[in-house]
Amino acid sequence: MGLPVPLSGVVPPLCTPLTPSGEVDTRSLGSLVEHVLAAGAHGVFVLGSSGETACLSDAQRRTALRAAVDAVAGRVPVLAGVIDMTTARVLDHARAAAALGADALVATAPFYVTTHPAEVRDHFRRIREGAGLPLFAYDIPQFVHTKLDAGTLLALAEDGTAAGLKDSSGDLGALRRLLVELRRRGLDGTFAVLTGSELAVDAALLAGAHGVVPGLGNVDPAGYVRLYEHARAGRWPEAAAEQDRLAALFALVEAGDLTGMSPTASALGGFKAALHLLGVIGCPATAAPLRPLSGEAVDAVRQHLARAGLL
Amino acid sequence: MGLPVPLSGVVPPLCTPLTPSGEVDTRSLGSLVEHVLAAGAHGVFVLGSSGETACLSDAQRRTALRAAVDAVAGRVPVLAGVIDMTTARVLDHARAAAALGADALVATAPFYVTTHPAEVRDHFRRIREGAGLPLFAYDIPQFVHTKLDAGTLLALAEDGTAAGLKDSSGDLGALRRLLVELRRRGLDGTFAVLTGSELAVDAALLAGAHGVVPGLGNVDPAGYVRLYEHARAGRWPEAAAEQDRLAALFALVEAGDLTGMSPTASALGGFKAALHLLGVIGCPATAAPLRPLSGEAVDAVRQHLARAGLL
Amino acid sequence: MGLPVPLSGVVPPLCTPLTPSGEVDTRSLGSLVEHVLAAGAHGVFVLGSSGETACLSDAQRRTALRAAVDAVAGRVPVLAGVIDMTTARVLDHARAAAALGADALVATAPFYVTTHPAEVRDHFRRIREGAGLPLFAYDIPQFVHTKLDAGTLLALAEDGTAAGLKDSSGDLGALRRLLVELRRRGLDGTFAVLTGSELAVDAALLAGAHGVVPGLGNVDPAGYVRLYEHARAGRWPEAAAEQDRLAALFALVEAGDLTGMSPTASALGGFKAALHLLGVIGCPATAAPLRPLSGEAVDAVRQHLARAGLL
Amino acid sequence: MGLPVPLSGVVPPLCTPLTPSGEVDTRSLGSLVEHVLAAGAHGVFVLGSSGETACLSDAQRRTALRAAVDAVAGRVPVLAGVIDMTTARVLDHARAAAALGADALVATAPFYVTTHPAEVRDHFRRIREGAGLPLFAYDIPQFVHTKLDAGTLLALAEDGTAAGLKDSSGDLGALRRLLVELRRRGLDGTFAVLTGSELAVDAALLAGAHGVVPGLGNVDPAGYVRLYEHARAGRWPEAAAEQDRLAALFALVEAGDLTGMSPTASALGGFKAALHLLGVIGCPATAAPLRPLSGEAVDAVRQHLARAGLL
Repeated sequence: MGLPVPLSGVVPPLCTPLTPSGEVDTRSLGSLVEHVLAAGAHGVFVLGSSGETACLSDAQRRTALRAAVDAVAGRVPVLAGVIDMTTARVLDHARAAAALGADALVATAPFYVTTHPAEVRDHFRRIREGAGLPLFAYDIPQFVHTKLDAGTLLALAEDGTAAGLKDSSGDLGALRRLLVELRRRGLDGTFAVLTGSELAVDAALLAGAHGVVPGLGNVDPAGYVRLYEHARAGRWPEAAAEQDRLAALFALVEAGDLTGMSPTASALGGFKAALHLLGVIGCPATAAPLRPLSGEAVDAVRQHLARAGLL
Repeated sequence: MGLPVPLSGVVPPLCTPLTPSGEVDTRSLGSLVEHVLAAGAHGVFVLGSSGETACLSDAQRRTALRAAVDAVAGRVPVLAGVIDMTTARVLDHARAAAALGADALVATAPFYVTTHPAEVRDHFRRIREGAGLPLFAYDIPQFVHTKLDAGTLLALAEDGTAAGLKDSSGDLGALRRLLVELRRRGLDGTFAVLTGSELAVDAALLAGAHGVVPGLGNVDPAGYVRLYEHARAGRWPEAAAEQDRLAALFALVEAGDLTGMSPTASALGGFKAALHLLGVIGCPATAAPLRPLSGEAVDAVRQHLARAGLL
Repeated sequence: MGLPVPLSGVVPPLCTPLTPSGEVDTRSLGSLVEHVLAAGAHGVFVLGSSGETACLSDAQRRTALRAAVDAVAGRVPVLAGVIDMTTARVLDHARAAAALGADALVATAPFYVTTHPAEVRDHFRRIREGAGLPLFAYDIPQFVHTKLDAGTLLALAEDGTAAGLKDSSGDLGALRRLLVELRRRGLDGTFAVLTGSELAVDAALLAGAHGVVPGLGNVDPAGYVRLYEHARAGRWPEAAAEQDRLAALFALVEAGDLTGMSPTASALGGFKAALHLLGVIGCPATAAPLRPLSGEAVDAVRQHLARAGLL
Repeated sequence: MGLPVPLSGVVPPLCTPLTPSGEVDTRSLGSLVEHVLAAGAHGVFVLGSSGETACLSDAQRRTALRAAVDAVAGRVPVLAGVIDMTTARVLDHARAAAALGADALVATAPFYVTTHPAEVRDHFRRIREGAGLPLFAYDIPQFVHTKLDAGTLLALAEDGTAAGLKDSSGDLGALRRLLVELRRRGLDGTFAVLTGSELAVDAALLAGAHGVVPGLGNVDPAGYVRLYEHARAGRWPEAAAEQDRLAALFALVEAGDLTGMSPTASALGGFKAALHLLGVIGCPATAAPLRPLSGEAVDAVRQHLARAGLL
């Protein structure tokens, strides 16, 4: 399917289900696609941070993207993460994603190296030119360790390099200033601002964001669709109430015991445990080196689901 | 005046006007108090980060607080910052502030030292006991270099140590989770959540925050009062529009040339230049070591004021 | 006593002993002075980070400095820390220290505010002019959250603002480059480079540093004096062996259980526990909000002392 | 060639020369190998941070490693960097490197994800088992954003997972404590500690490190070999003098204008400009997104080379 301009709505960053032996479980990925599309999702984002993209080999990435494209079958746009350290490596992923049928790409600023804004802009421009697909800039400073600044984003919007932003920085003030400036320059009709902050969706939509890419939307896509529709209709108290419910549910990312595992392992393990408990995926395993959740942690996830009315 | 429970509304963190020779300009501080009270502010916060508290000697701090208490004359509550590295030093400021007539205190976690949450809680408890005034916890990780975690804040709310939070962390997700949990525990009627993120006030109020402590509220207190009233009345699109206008005005904090001065100097210099241009204070000087704005920077501030309809 | 130019040798940053009720224990401070002078220390540094200066009130700081000046009685130079957020506040401490008989001052870059190098230089120049005492720049980025850059240090050395550097940054590469450049400009005879990295003293001296300000030198000043003398005499293997012994002893700073206290509390508590076990000070208490060491932690400190041949 | 146990000496992390069109210049890489082996280097490290590994595609990495293995032709060990985000991806690089004839692998902790020490240990163990080659742990927190802690390193040394450490953390205190503890446990004969801090080599060797992996050793391998031999022979003043000379030369990494390029681009561009000026490689180009040095910057590099007696 072509990409709406600007892209809007709820676009869950899909988890990548694995088999007990650590292979990509394409059947479960298909079920997950149905789970979010049945709830009304407006697109899917494959191979993002929630998709454990950092933990997947190139072959696994290709398997997952192919399976997602097949399962979606053109019903909504498929965005593909092309997460790697710098330009040449990202371009290899980008070409692979284009060949597999992705509708758009999502890339971060370079990491492992230090960067200058001029280098970051050049990086995105080379990816856009090299891959021939619409490109979203992915701002996720907790993993990339730099933030995309407003000047860079406006330049990428102005010259058409980027079709939008996935903002997982958590910096709502910067997001708002960007939105105000995009409107002032008449760019909000072509450059989509999508928030990845799953606890500030009502706020981002009130500020004018076009959509949301919520990791927690794997678990409760219907909640995010309701939240989005409340906001579109101007039902802000209802939007806030739905957001509050989802904020409580979000506690499942902290189910893991951080004295023995990383926050990444706890969060991604929490999403997958929830999907497993809901019967959406066949196995809650995460990829090495992420530690698995304990039985007690899974029980905690179960209780969060029950409290949110999902079990 | 006594302190409303919970404190709510617009509580500008007052700039501390200085004379050209660097002394506290008590007359200008009085004018600033009138400027914000005439606009409908519900309280004032003296000696916060916007008040250059880090740059003032103890004598200057006392002069400023005394002048503010005198100027306010009981019309609204006066919150006094007691910003220092650790407990004994904060307690000295706290006793001085109590003697000068502050209605409440605002303290950060310890800094310069590393801290453990148990030490942070103990720190706030000792300040609360030692000073005998309601105490607000001030979360400003960009200066203190640690964030107040939810467990600490809920413990301080539960046992009555803290009357509220001034949240300048910019982390709306954490703020929302705190608000949800405070309501779940029935603590939102006694513990006030005030956002210091001047660009996310509509969002914070939509999430249930009680009020706002906006540095930019020195310059445009009427704007923040309108925003607050729109939000209270459920006029969310109007609140967002007002917030957008203020977000554009906020650019004045970047008027300074960062190749020759710090962001702190640019931001505080921008606030003071604006107040000087508006005729509220007599001199735009900031305290050492902050560099002054250049003439071009002041021109930029003037243009931002004009664009926002303030000049 | 006057200050040697350049200052060199072993200058322990003295702990500030406290009574069980939290007052400065001037008698124990006198014993600590004797402890380090008997071992051959070439100066003392009062009110540094090891002296819990961040945790002491102004009155306690004055008491401690007065007691140290009295106890030293002119036998070696007394450096006084004047640690505070910005210029005006540091100047107040500087004038107090001058009045109490300090021979030199030690100040950090501004903190709590953001800074620009031009502001940092101005800060040190105002302190030097205002206080009339030789000034050491204190580079301790783990607490101040910025590093003093080479350009700033060379400017302060060149115009005579600073009499030297206390480098606790742990960045030996930067230290070496500074030393090479100071020698190239002929400034190493007037600007003293003192390392605060107690585990890299042999390395710093081999690189040309003039002296050392080791927190662990409270506990084992004789070890650091031996290390210094080995280095001066070119006995590098012996210097390294002594440094190795001190590196093993340094483990006492980790005796505390960090699931319940901060690294600062563990380190300063470890130093004080050791001094108490050695009979140098009367009470191992640290100041609020630092948590005290447990009995098991004190046992661990005792074992480290025994293993190092000090008990 | 087999790998000496423990590995020791000077092991330059080779730059990866590129053609003007951005392909790996295998002929220049061969010249670079001769340049460092003629100077007496004891090994080479291909595809490290100095080798722009983050900027090379998988195909380019393979080309570079193959060319280096061919050029070295068994004269010294070839260490191959296998730098990627997490376990599965590193394992793919590891298998490729083994097939291409590397003698050992060099891997970092996982990045892009957050990690727990238990996950880091597991990560290294899986790589060691999966690739069947000796493995060096690469500690480079400025790029990976976590530091390898002593507990992890000692565990990896004790169970034979790691053959050594390449320490680019710059933390000489931690390095020294590790060395003391390795000797105490009798592990210093099997676990090699190599410093990547090119300005603290004399210090690291004095502390007992086995060798050095200096980026600047591309430019002046003979200098590092002299430094190493002085140290081995106990000629510490001569070692320090050589280190001082190299510290002055190191300024070439700052030749680039950081208002328009990143520190990474300036440093790697500086190394390559120097190699080009010395006639070792055919073209000074770096890979996207790194900005090239300006003509003035290249002139500055030339002057540094001249001052160091290399031109």
